[in-house]
This record gives sequence, structure tokens and C-alpha cells, in this order.
Amino acid sequence: MSATGAPRRGRRGGGREAKRARAAESSPSQAYIKRNIPYFEILDEEGLCLIEHNADTILEEIGIDFRDDAEALQMWRDAGADIQGERVRFPRGLCRKLVMDSAPAKFTQHARNPARSVVIGGNNTVMVPAYGPPFVHDLDKGRRYATIEDFQNFVKLAYSSKSLHHSGGTVCEPVDLPVNKRHFDMVYAHMRYSDKPFMGSVTAPERAQDTVEMAKILFGDNWIDPETGIERTVVVNLINANSPLTYDDTMLGAAKVYARANQGCIISPFILSGAMSPVTVAGTAAQILAEALAGMAFVQLVRPGAPVVFGTFASSVSMQSGAPTFGSPEPTQVMYIAASLARRLGVPFRSGGGLCASKLPDAQAAYEAANTLHSAAMAGVNFMLHTAGWLEGGLAMGYEKFVMDADQASMLAVLLAGVDLSKNGQALDALREVGPGNHFLGCTHTQENFQSAFWRSEVSDNNSFEQWESEGSLDAAQRANIKWKSTLASYVEPPIDIAIDEALLDFIKMRKDSFPDANY
Amino acid sequence: MSATGAPRRGRRGGGREAKRARAAESSPSQAYIKRNIPYFEILDEEGLCLIEHNADTILEEIGIDFRDDAEALQMWRDAGADIQGERVRFPRGLCRKLVMDSAPAKFTQHARNPARSVVIGGNNTVMVPAYGPPFVHDLDKGRRYATIEDFQNFVKLAYSSKSLHHSGGTVCEPVDLPVNKRHFDMVYAHMRYSDKPFMGSVTAPERAQDTVEMAKILFGDNWIDPETGIERTVVVNLINANSPLTYDDTMLGAAKVYARANQGCIISPFILSGAMSPVTVAGTAAQILAEALAGMAFVQLVRPGAPVVFGTFASSVSMQSGAPTFGSPEPTQVMYIAASLARRLGVPFRSGGGLCASKLPDAQAAYEAANTLHSAAMAGVNFMLHTAGWLEGGLAMGYEKFVMDADQASMLAVLLAGVDLSKNGQALDALREVGPGNHFLGCTHTQENFQSAFWRSEVSDNNSFEQWESEGSLDAAQRANIKWKSTLASYVEPPIDIAIDEALLDFIKMRKDSFPDANY
Repeated sequence: MSATGAPRRGRRGGGREAKRARAAESSPSQAYIKRNIPYFEILDEEGLCLIEHNADTILEEIGIDFRDDAEALQMWRDAGADIQGERVRFPRGLCRKLVMDSAPAKFTQHARNPARSVVIGGNNTVMVPAYGPPFVHDLDKGRRYATIEDFQNFVKLAYSSKSLHHSGGTVCEPVDLPVNKRHFDMVYAHMRYSDKPFMGSVTAPERAQDTVEMAKILFGDNWIDPETGIERTVVVNLINANSPLTYDDTMLGAAKVYARANQGCIISPFILSGAMSPVTVAGTAAQILAEALAGMAFVQLVRPGAPVVFGTFASSVSMQSGAPTFGSPEPTQVMYIAASLARRLGVPFRSGGGLCASKLPDAQAAYEAANTLHSAAMAGVNFMLHTAGWLEGGLAMGYEKFVMDADQASMLAVLLAGVDLSKNGQALDALREVGPGNHFLGCTHTQENFQSAFWRSEVSDNNSFEQWESEGSLDAAQRANIKWKSTLASYVEPPIDIAIDEALLDFIKMRKDSFPDANY
Repeated sequence: MSATGAPRRGRRGGGREAKRARAAESSPSQAYIKRNIPYFEILDEEGLCLIEHNADTILEEIGIDFRDDAEALQMWRDAGADIQGERVRFPRGLCRKLVMDSAPAKFTQHARNPARSVVIGGNNTVMVPAYGPPFVHDLDKGRRYATIEDFQNFVKLAYSSKSLHHSGGTVCEPVDLPVNKRHFDMVYAHMRYSDKPFMGSVTAPERAQDTVEMAKILFGDNWIDPETGIERTVVVNLINANSPLTYDDTMLGAAKVYARANQGCIISPFILSGAMSPVTVAGTAAQILAEALAGMAFVQLVRPGAPVVFGTFASSVSMQSGAPTFGSPEPTQVMYIAASLARRLGVPFRSGGGLCASKLPDAQAAYEAANTLHSAAMAGVNFMLHTAGWLEGGLAMGYEKFVMDADQASMLAVLLAGVDLSKNGQALDALREVGPGNHFLGCTHTQENFQSAFWRSEVSDNNSFEQWESEGSLDAAQRANIKWKSTLASYVEPPIDIAIDEALLDFIKMRKDSFPDANY
């Protein structure tokens, strides 16, 4: 802005602007997004009832396999289901009743920094990094196996991001560590290098238990809510169905550990339509609802009232190559339907994210990610896993992609915040002051509002071609490359009680020493 | 697909697949999109009434300048408006009444190939190339001034595209031709190298008249509908307001020419919020409605019943640099509101497109374009100008960007077509056949549906990293580069009656010879 307050086109930030930018960066970020626009509903009441009816038919007639878990089968038998071998068939409405009777509509996931606690469900959206990639990618070194250093880097980047509200879970697989012990280092990284909420280990019931034990150490006296005497929910955890229509003992075991400790379970059918579900949207949606209902109801059998999230991850496979595709219309439709179904059940919903099949942070990555991010926001996703970093169908976590996606997440926060219809928002006085043929740059209303007026990208270049060229003709990925490096260089870790940190490290050492390394 | 019908991952197209792909390519494209999903409404009834009330306040109290056009002022005086100099103030509700009394809710824009005619309005969406860039960009030659050869290339690319329903207008400015005569070559290119509908010249009333004369030659006996005796609408035309709150004699003159010939006028406030409108969404929306109402009502004064489209182009300027920004949340909110307002008026709506500020077809271009394209689709845009090619805030038309955006348009067509809730769509038999733990690739339902099951990108690479690497590690822009060249190389022009073509060329020669070249 010039001294008169009128923005000038093509001018670089001077002293005042730089000062303002620094002030904005140091201001506290919003802990999560409170939505103030309607949901997009792709189906009407009749269509949604049809999907619900079909899900009940699937549960009643075809059933769900609960594999290698006699306890689970007994729980279902006691609840009134029909058990044949490992196949569980459910009287119509049973799962829905179990969920609606006791699953909370929303819950607080407490962070060790209370200002970072998030409310999952209702009108809220929590933006969460990508989860699970064994590889990482950046412009300098290309694609390579992830290490614990990469893991820590992404925890630090998410901690530093104003638009990500969560530290995530397996932000990448630290393949330099033994499979059966890396969960200690992952959970510790979330606890130590961030003070945002995080996700626990689900790859074995005992690793879930380790997560719970570490959470108890981290939260100490805050583990139990003194008013209710109940454990606070401090981790949420990704429980995938083995679609179609199957839950295995690993996931059931982890779910039982977490539910018994009142920790959150995100029950997620993981679907590649055409392979793990029918090739149609309505068929896939009914299957997802059946699987999610059975999983969430199981958690309510384990501990009524334990927090659950209706999750869905839906992609479609290319009928030509069998490869999964992203940013495509059919999974978007499935997501819109699933979001509506979750609202009707009265449970939080997880989906979305910056999904893409691209191997690098190019236009394909961005089109596909934007399509999923935007529609997930419109659908009303409460817990947006995979918001930032996802490349190559989830096989790689991209440093530049992470920065670009997080930038988009900050854009969606403004979109979801809704339209200001106050007198200032209506701006009739500005129109009266300026009138036909003049410009608004210097008018009183603009002067009073320009600092907060418009969302500002931290990655996009909006300058003139000539200025962009004079600055090196960088593309978006190259600018993001500069940004993640500067963010890591200026990272300062959040303070942690030394005694707690030592107790965590002692626990990890004790546990790691108690059994041999293994890569399974 | 293998011989058993099961797709294989990572396999390249063999004989059968190639044959099927060729069949798909030769099948006729849909003339336009018939929407079968709801609209997203960002404001409720109360919010929309507030914007409408404020627009009426602007029209009544502040008014609109109609500049250098005594005839227009007289028409407004006769209609009951208050005229002070060139300022026109409107009794509350006058403009709305004029529009609602006679403007058609939808209309057919006839193409010279009747199978390509489009219906603009209602539940339909027509995808249209970008409009206006003086530069072009491709990966080989970078950014340069556009020529008539570029213009013809983009007409050919739009003609060859299955997802673009329209040839557009000034797909780029052929700056190698004199300003006062290039409209002949532009309109001729649309008529000759495509048989899709197109847009006319608006840069001077006599150029609009030339467009009408050429359309009469092209359509011959089809110019008049024999049943009604009325001119068929065969061109639509972009009439921009000079925001804020001003119409000038150029645009008014062109609008009068087209309206009197029953041709379509897209009345478009062109807004960079913060410069040409208030810095707030609600203020900008009210201004847009006021401007669009005044322009559309003016057309109805010129010829009641002449087709009009409520247009809006809204960007926001960076309050730091003054540069326009794209894919940002505030213009998205403005567009959602404007779409709702147009529906309440009962007129077609134009907005959207693949807008971006990027100088090249990178991730920034794609994020920003996808955000605008996706939200425009959800908003219910009927005439999506700038769907494909837009770079650098509209200063450049990108060859690769064009291909990538058109690919996205084909994706949106599937999204908008809605969810199949038929028995086949519900796919319960597939679930019964496959059951828990198995896969759907080879089941009967998949076999019967795989050919049409999922949208297929023509640009995205969904293959494995290894295969992608073995094929040269191309990014999306590089693949698009290959595609536009192969499309131009295989372009075959649509047949045209030789006598009509000669008459067009004679008309152009006669007119070009009748006045000297000039570059204004």
C-alpha cells in the first residue's frame, strides 16, 4: 500500500508491508475451522433413504466378516446378530441403533497445548496432513524412501502451518527404523516436535497400547477429566476396513484398545471402486455405509460412548490399467453421499484431502488435489485426513506438495467461514462514496478493511509477467521448495516439561529393550 | 482389460483397448451438459433478499451512468427512470420487472451444425474457451503475442474437444491484424474451422453489425425461424459493464445491434473487488446485481424478449500489490451468490472458467483453475466462459493449459450428470455375487459396466512410478504439449457449403476494402 492507502500494482513489499506480513505470521492460528456455509447435498431424501435401505440389506443378507477375533464374534452374538463362522449378519437397523444410541455427535480431541485442541464433528473442519506414504519427494532429491528425519520434518512443517490443525499420524513411514518399533519414534515425534493433536499407531494392538501409555505420560494429570472421571480423548486413530465387507484382527484389536481407553476411532472403508466395491457410485456408497455402520457399532459395543468417526476413502480404479485415479467425479459423488449419510447418523465424518496420482508437484497433482479438497470442503468433511503432501496415490509425501496443499487449506478456511452480511460487509457507504466510474482503492471503507479483506496465498505469484520473469521465472513448486526449507530453518520446537520428556524416553527405551527388532 | 475382463494394473493398452479408445474418440460429443445434481446455495432466502434490496438501493439512490448514448438515456426516460446528465436512477423494482417480464429463462443458440446447437439457461451448462488474451503461451516458444494462426489453432482445438461445447469468441487477439478489421478474420475462423456455436465482435457497433451480416450469410434460410418469423439466435456476445456502475457507448452500441437482431447479450460486470467494487463479498454482489439488472433491462427496452445472460466476472485485487488474484475464496463466494440471484431472476448465468494468475501451466495454474471450475459447476453456471486456456489473469492463452482445462471440463460433465440410482446403479447383485473379502474386477456387474464405469482423464498419468519413469518422467504440461500438437495434426475441418464460404469471403473483402486499416 502507498502512504495514502491505495494499493499499487506490481510493487514489492516495502518496510510497512513486510512488517504487517511478519505480524500476520506471528498471530495465533485458528485451532480449527467453524463452518458458516451450508452443506452441499447431492442426493435428496429419497435417494439417501435408498442407500440406507441397501446398506441394511447388505448387513442383513450378505453380512460382514470379522476375522480371527472370537471376542468380537461373541460380542456380536450377544448383541443379537447372526453368526455363521466368521460371517456376521445384522438384523435391520441394529448397527444404526447402536451408533445412534451412544456415539457422540462431536467430541474434543485434546492437544497438549489446550489452545490447539480441536472439536471433531458438528460444523467444524480439522485439516490433517497426509497419512501413510513409504516414500518422500522433493525437487532437490526426487523420490526416495522416507526416514525418521523426514517424519520429523513433516511434523515440524505441520506444526508451523497456520492452516493445518493437526499433526497427523504416519505422515510418512520411517523405513529406516524396524517395523515393530518405529511407532515409538513416530508417536514421540508428534509429542515432542508439535503441540497439536495427533494420531496413534494401529498396526498391532500392542502398538495401540504403547500409544495409549505414552499419551498417559504426556498428559499426566490431564489424562482424566476431573469432572466426569472419564479419560480425555487425546489420540484419534485410523481403523480401516478390509473392503469389501471385512474387518481383520489387527484393526479390531487396535480399535478395542483405543475404544476401551475412550480414544477416537476413525472407521474407514478404504475403497478402490471397481476392485473393492462395485463400479457404480450408488453401490459403492451403500457398501461404505454398511462397512462404516458395522465398524462404528462394534466400537459402541466395546465401549458405549467412545468417540467414533465415519470415515471414507474412495477412489476409482482405471478400468484400463487397474491403477487408482484421483480428482475424478465418481469418488467425489461417493464422498458427497457419505457426508450426508454421516450427518443423518449424527456422527463426525472423515474424508477428502489433497489426493492425486501424480508423481511430482505439477499441474496434474494440483488439479486432482484441488478437486478433492474443494469438494470435501463443500461436502462438510469434519476430519480432513490427507489435506497436505499426498502424491502418487499416497505412496509419496511431497515436501513442495505439502506447502502448496496447506496453502489451499488456508483458502478453504476463508470459503467455509461464510459471507459477512453485516453493515460493514454490505458496504453501501463505500458505493455511495465512490459512485459510477471511480475506483475503490482509496475510499474510507477500503482503508478500514484492506488488511483483512482478502485471503492471501503464500505460494501463488500474482505479479506481472515482467516482474515474475525478473525474479527468476519460478513455478509454484520452486517457490514451495524455498518455503519449506525456510520454514524448517526457522522452526522452534514448542516447550515441553523436561520430566515428561524424560519419562517418555524412559518408557520408549524400556519397551524397545524388551523385545527384538523385527521388520513385520 | 485381460481376456477374462479383469483389469491389470500397470499394463499398457493392447489391441482391444486401443480399439475401444478409438471407438470412444469417434463417438459424437454431447452438445452441452444437462445438470442432474442440485445447486449449491451459499446464502439463505434472507441473505439473498438483503443483496437484492441493496441492489435496488444502489439503482435508486446512486444510479448507473450510461455514457455518450443519448438514445439510451431517452429510452430510460421513457421507461420511467430519473435522468440527471448521464446518470440514470431507477425506481425500485423497475429493472427487475423489465427483465422478468420479457427476458427468456433459456434460449437456444443455434450452430451451423444443428447437432451442436446449445441451450443456454435452465439446468444446462455450456463450456466455452477463454476470451480476450493478447498473448499465447506454449512450452516450446514460451509467451508471445498472439496471431491469427494462433486464433485458428484454438478454434480447431475447441472444435476437436469433446468437452467444449462452444467455439468461444476472441480466443486470443490476433495482433498481427489491424484492430479495425481483425473481427472479420476472427468471426470467419469460427464459421469456417468449427461448426460449434460462437461469439461475435463487440469492440464497435459496426463490428457487431458485420458479425450479424456474416451470420446471415452463414445461416441463409435458417436465419429466420419459419414458425415464428423471428431471427434465430446464432451468436452470443460479451457486453461488459465498465464497473463501477457505468456502461459506455461502445458496449451499449454493440448491445443494441445484437438485441435488435435477436442475438444474445451476456451482460457482464467485470469486477476486480477492492478496485472496481467494495472489498467485501456482500457489497460486490449487490453492485454486480445492480449493474447486471440495468444492462439486462436495457436490452429488454431495446427489444423485449431478446436473449440476455446475467454475467459476472469477479476477481479480487491483492491489497499488497494491486494485482488480480484467482482461485481465491471471496470471488468464489461472490459467484455462488450471483448464480442464486440469476436463478431468482429467471435468466441464464455466465461465470467461472479456468481462471488463474500463473504465467505457465504449473501447479498454481491448476489449483486456481480447478477451484474456479469446480465452484462454477457447483454454483450452476450456464455459460462457462474461460473454461479452457486462461493464463496470467487473462493476458495469455496457453496451449497446454487449454488441453488440461478441457480435460477438467469433461470431468465436470460427469459430476454434473448426477448419480445413477437405477437397479444397475445400486449394484446389490454385484455385492451378493462377490461378498466379503473378494474383489469385483471380474464379477458380472463389472464386466457389464466397465466400459462406461468411470471418467477417464486424457492428461493424467495414473501409472506406477516405474512405468511413468520409463516413459520419460513427463509432467502434465509436457503430456498436454504432445496432445495439442497431435490434435492439430489430425484436425479435419467440418464441411461447409462452398457458395456460403465464397459469399462470406466476398463480404469480408468488400468490407475490408471499404475503409483503411487502423489500429484502434
